[in-house]
This record gives sequence, structure tokens and C-alpha cells, in this order.
Amino acid sequence: MTDAKDAKDAKMPYSLNSKAVAEATYAWLHKRGVTLLEIAELVMLLQKNYYPNLTMDECVHNVEMVLSKREVQNAVLTGIQLDVLAEEGKLFPPLQDMIENDEGLYGVDEILAFSIVNVYGSIGFTNYGYVDKLKPGVLKRLNDKSDGQIHTYLDDIVGAVAAAASSRIAHRKQAEREQELGLPHAPEDSEEAAKRRAAQEGSEAPE
Amino acid sequence: MTDAKDAKDAKMPYSLNSKAVAEATYAWLHKRGVTLLEIAELVMLLQKNYYPNLTMDECVHNVEMVLSKREVQNAVLTGIQLDVLAEEGKLFPPLQDMIENDEGLYGVDEILAFSIVNVYGSIGFTNYGYVDKLKPGVLKRLNDKSDGQIHTYLDDIVGAVAAAASSRIAHRKQAEREQELGLPHAPEDSEEAAKRRAAQEGSEAPE
Amino acid sequence: MTDAKDAKDAKMPYSLNSKAVAEATYAWLHKRGVTLLEIAELVMLLQKNYYPNLTMDECVHNVEMVLSKREVQNAVLTGIQLDVLAEEGKLFPPLQDMIENDEGLYGVDEILAFSIVNVYGSIGFTNYGYVDKLKPGVLKRLNDKSDGQIHTYLDDIVGAVAAAASSRIAHRKQAEREQELGLPHAPEDSEEAAKRRAAQEGSEAPE
Amino acid sequence: MTDAKDAKDAKMPYSLNSKAVAEATYAWLHKRGVTLLEIAELVMLLQKNYYPNLTMDECVHNVEMVLSKREVQNAVLTGIQLDVLAEEGKLFPPLQDMIENDEGLYGVDEILAFSIVNVYGSIGFTNYGYVDKLKPGVLKRLNDKSDGQIHTYLDDIVGAVAAAASSRIAHRKQAEREQELGLPHAPEDSEEAAKRRAAQEGSEAPE
Repeated sequence: MTDAKDAKDAKMPYSLNSKAVAEATYAWLHKRGVTLLEIAELVMLLQKNYYPNLTMDECVHNVEMVLSKREVQNAVLTGIQLDVLAEEGKLFPPLQDMIENDEGLYGVDEILAFSIVNVYGSIGFTNYGYVDKLKPGVLKRLNDKSDGQIHTYLDDIVGAVAAAASSRIAHRKQAEREQELGLPHAPEDSEEAAKRRAAQEGSEAPE
Repeated sequence: MTDAKDAKDAKMPYSLNSKAVAEATYAWLHKRGVTLLEIAELVMLLQKNYYPNLTMDECVHNVEMVLSKREVQNAVLTGIQLDVLAEEGKLFPPLQDMIENDEGLYGVDEILAFSIVNVYGSIGFTNYGYVDKLKPGVLKRLNDKSDGQIHTYLDDIVGAVAAAASSRIAHRKQAEREQELGLPHAPEDSEEAAKRRAAQEGSEAPE
Repeated sequence: MTDAKDAKDAKMPYSLNSKAVAEATYAWLHKRGVTLLEIAELVMLLQKNYYPNLTMDECVHNVEMVLSKREVQNAVLTGIQLDVLAEEGKLFPPLQDMIENDEGLYGVDEILAFSIVNVYGSIGFTNYGYVDKLKPGVLKRLNDKSDGQIHTYLDDIVGAVAAAASSRIAHRKQAEREQELGLPHAPEDSEEAAKRRAAQEGSEAPE
Repeated sequence: MTDAKDAKDAKMPYSLNSKAVAEATYAWLHKRGVTLLEIAELVMLLQKNYYPNLTMDECVHNVEMVLSKREVQNAVLTGIQLDVLAEEGKLFPPLQDMIENDEGLYGVDEILAFSIVNVYGSIGFTNYGYVDKLKPGVLKRLNDKSDGQIHTYLDDIVGAVAAAASSRIAHRKQAEREQELGLPHAPEDSEEAAKRRAAQEGSEAPE
């Protein structure tokens, strides 16, 4: 009864399976023809002037970290689903037309993209808009409307993942710089750091 | 050749038809069982303490004004489309499960709702969260999962339309108050006001 | 007792004065050295490829319409206030340092800018990011840190106003196109249109 | 030359000091009379129905994790700064009046609050609106305008920190549940997990 189909037939109560969501995200990006390396190339384009020593490995790693976030996975899956359904002509008329034609006044794709950028904070807004306007690398291919494929959502989503990865790099590089300068470290959202802080500042902690 | 199907066969070039989008928005809200009056009742609930003389007619009118905005129509249609496809079991697995079960860690519905609230500014954030948590009136019915219908998106969207209408009312009431006080008026985004301003301040205008 | 100072001394109850807020917005943009014409030039840069007949007058007009929105005025005034206080060295230390140095990991300026873009919908996200990255025209001057002036907020705000004006133009041009095509018109948030609709569709309206 | 004033006199080049920003955030919350325990009580109020075994220690810990995020620190410091300046009467007139009187049509405080909620994703929108409307616990005191203190920003910020901590808890509890069920784990944004993944799926990784 561990088989997914049997489980469904038996009306097993629903329970979110994070691993399945994460894997579907990777699988669908792959099916829609986008590689992590291509997204990493956008990150490199956006960040190389600021960090001349930045490697492609770091860019790929940061793209993976962005894609590991549930908020990002939800947006990726929802956007690709709408692209696929539009490609199959299965949406109802005005929405079908708008998504199929990447209507300029339809901005729900940008809204989903933005929820991805937001995950690593507001400093990524600019990078997102920049790649979305210039359409470098993989974004150019995704925007090519000549092959019958519809990527109205995916092109914005890929740009957003690259922008979010750029923000993540900016935060990390600052942490590295401070460590090199020997500054006391204040890591973000780290369980270990919290424990240290709690131990140090016992008197301030709530009773 | 005005028949929609023929037009499509003939590959008539795509052109956005705003009227069709607006009408689809009203039609789909109706099909999914939501009336303007029910949304207006949420508005009344949110605003009656601030404006004791507020009428249901005003609430309905403000809901209509919110629904006339293209940004709102896009979000309404996209959200209802995803609900309908989930009801028909046509989404791919992890997304199907998450939307079908209104998964707590899936927040794309909130993101779409938020894009509606935003149209009348940030003062609506609070009202949106409040009705989305308490689920009064129509929201209770939309959240009832016992009837096989899926309204994962629609309940958030309806709450967002009510919150946006509340914001619109707050802006209008302020304008009315200033007019009663005899204060010089500074209307928002009004072509006529701009012309008056341009006439008055001719010297400041760019050459 | 109409004198502002006297009024204050007499503890006149507070009441929002929209006209005063609107005028302060124009006055502070002027004081900080930004003209409507310069913002309009950014709009022209962003839109001329899409609308070859777009005039500078139209660009200026759309910038004025954006600036007439209260949500925009609030963001403009708050951002300029923080710039001015940073210039005078009056903020508390870490914030003073971050705003004075336009710290890359400080993104509240982008957040305020974004609330401006949002007023005309999500289609402006891209244009905002694009000008914020490339810093054309007036944005280049505002970013020049050599003159002792601090425009950490203002450069983002000016880019956002230009992006919002571009969105407004896109919406208007679509309406014009539909009118030329003789399509039935569905105007956004227009009181007159609502009255017509109510008259036509009397039977659907709530009793 | 480690003295801050000397350093400034000597025009030491600016460099962000994360620890100083983090400490200022805690110090200013304390100065403005808000304890972590009070914020944690809001979290408990929001979450106890979903997680009956939730402890105050967990709530405090999650509040600390939210406050360790730079994006959050930036919003907290900027908001408190504006409150303090309004209290001292140092803002320019229309902004001074609007912030001093917590003007209903001024929503920049909500915008900053929202940037805090966003850090842990869209699922926090509802909780933020809910506490911001009902003003339980510490929020009631912050909203009491009778004592001359101005907390126009701080009350929204505290509600937002509580909402973000609630989102963080929801994400963590799901991870715990999956671990108990023996499901394969897919942690979010974890360097170690990435390394494992890279090792396992070497063939898929970009060369």
C-alpha cells in the first residue's frame, strides 16, 4: 500500500510530501528544457562585475538553494502548469488567449515571479527587472514564440530564480567579508547562532 | 467571420478584447456561485463601524469598480481556472494534491489575492488578512470542503476584492469629507484635474 | 485662525489635507532637483519602441497622473524625508550609515519604490528593474555620490514613478486601440461606465 | 582608533557591520518598550490552535530567528526611526501630521510590515492582517495614543514579526511531521542538504 496509486484509491488522507514537491520542481524544469546551468549563467551575468572571483559552481549551488525553497517550488510548478495547459489549449477562452499570446497587460506571471524574488529580500527586484527586459541567454530562447511552445510564465520564473540566487550570493559574500575582517558574526536564521546567543545573553531572555 | 471559432481557424491575429475579459470575470464568479451582493456584504462588515451611513448600494458599486480593473480580472480568472482544473483532477500530481487540499504551505492563492488588494494601495492589507482568517459570510461557504467543490483560490480572491473595495471606499470618503469642509480638492488620477492644473501652473510645465 | 501655526497652537483636531500632501510632493521633488520633464524622459525611453507616436506631453501627463495618487505621494514624501535626514546626519547610527552609503543589502528603498510601481499593476515590475539597473538620464545624476547629496531613496522612487507611468500608458493605449477597432469598451474604474452597466443589466443587479 | 567617533573623523571607508545592525535592532525594540516575550505571545495566540504542544520557548526562538534576518532588521530600524522622529516633531509637515496621527490613508507602515512577512513566504499574509486588525496583547498598548508615544510603524512591525514567526513555525512543523512519518527529507536552503544532493545525483549536475 505504499504505491502512490493504491494509496489514492484507498483515500489515504492527504499529507504534504515535501520531497515529491521538490522533485517535481526539478523534473518539470527539465521537461520544459531549462537546465540549472543555464539559470546559473544568468546569475553569473548579473554578479560577475561585483564578484570577479565568482565561479559557475557557486552560481549553480545558489540556484539550487533557491529552488529548495517551498515558496519557490510552488510558484515554479503553478507557472509551468499554466504554460503547459495553455500549450494544450485547455484554458478557458480569454485566459487561454492572454497566456498563449503573452499579453502585455496580463501580469500574473510577473506576480508569481515576484514571489520568488521576494524570498531573498527586496534587493533582488532590480536584477529581476533587468534580465526580464534584456532577455539574455536562456530567456531569449524561452521567449522565441516560433516553436509552438508557450513559456509565458517560465521565462519570468527563470529570471526570478536567477535574481533570487543573486540576492543570496550578495548576502553570503557580505558574511564572508565580515569573517575575513574578523568582525563578530551575526548569521541570519541559524539555529546554532540562536543557541549561542541564548547562552550568552541569558539575563535578557524571557523567563 | 465574426464567429469566434471561425476567427480562430482563420488565424486572425490576436488582439486583447477588454470587454470579453471583463465579461468572463463576471460570468465565472457567477458560475462559481459568488454574487456581487455577497462580496458587498463583506465590505459592509469591514466598513460599517467607520461609516455608519454606508449603504449596500455603495458597497455593491465599489465591488463593481474593483472588478472593472484589469489587474483584478486577470487574478480572478487565473485563480478560478486553477480551482476548476483541480476540481476536474487535471493538474499534475503534487500541484493537484496541494490545490485540492488547500495545503497550508501553498501560498500562491494568497499571492494572487494580494495583487488584487494592492490595486487600491497598502491600506487594504489588514482587511484582507482579517476576513481571510475569520471567513465570514460567503467565505465560510467557499471554505466548506464537504461538497466536492474546490475554492482554494476563490475564497482568497473574494476576500481580496472585498478588502480592495473597502480601501476604495476609504479613499472616496476622505474626498467627500474634504469637499464638505470646503478644502481645495486634489483628486487622484483624474484627467480633468490634470488639465486644470496644467492651465493654472502653465509656467512650471515643461516647454 | 486659518494660519497653520495658530491652528496648531489651538490644537485643532487633525484632519488629512489631500491638497497639502499633493503640493508637498511636487515641492519636495523640485527641492531635491528632479523635474517632471526628467521623469517623463525616462518614460519616453521605456515606451518609444512600443508607441512611436508617443509625445513628451503625453509622458509628462502620465507622470502627473501617477504623482496624483496618494499611495505614490506617501512613498515619495517618506523616501525624500529619509534622504534629507541622512544628508543632515540625523538618523541613528546603523541606519545613518546604511542610507548614507546606499548599502547594497539595505532594500527598504526598493520596497517603497515597489509600492509605487504596484499602483498601476504588475506589468511595471520589469520597467522598474530595468531603469534602476541602467540608471539612464536623471537617475545617473541622482546616483552620483560625489556632491554630498544623498538620494538613496529618490533614485529608486523616480525610476518607479517612470515605470508606473509606463504601465499607465500601456493601459491607455490598449483602450485607444479598442476604440479605434470599434470594440465595445470596458473602461477601468469609471463611475460613468458603472452607471451605464447598472442601467443595462438591471435584472442582474442586487435588489 | 577603534573608537567609533575617531573612526568617523578619519573617514574610514564604510563597510556594513552586520553585528551592529542586529544589535541595534534588539536595542531599539527594547528602548521602545517591546520584549521578545510579548511578540512570542502573539505567535502563541496565532498558532496554539494548530499546534497544541507549542511552547513559549519555541515561540521566542522563532521570533529570534525572524529578527536575525537582515531584511527584517532593515524594516524594524527604519520604522522605529520614523516613529522616533515623529515623536520629536522632526519630520516635515504633511508627513509629520500623517505619521503622528497614524493617518488611515498612509500605508507605508503596512508596506514595511509586509516586507517582513514576505521573508517567510505568502502564507503569513493572513496572520498579519488578523493581528493588525484585532490588536491583541502588546499591539493594544502600542496603539494606545494617550501617552504621547508614537508607534505608527512599530505596531505594524511587531504584528508582522509575529506573523513571520508563525509562518516559520508552520514550515518547521511540516518538516518534523515528515521526519516522524519516515518520509525522505527535503530541507529548505540548507548547505548540507545540497552537498548530499550533489553527491547522490552527480550525473544530473552540470559539468
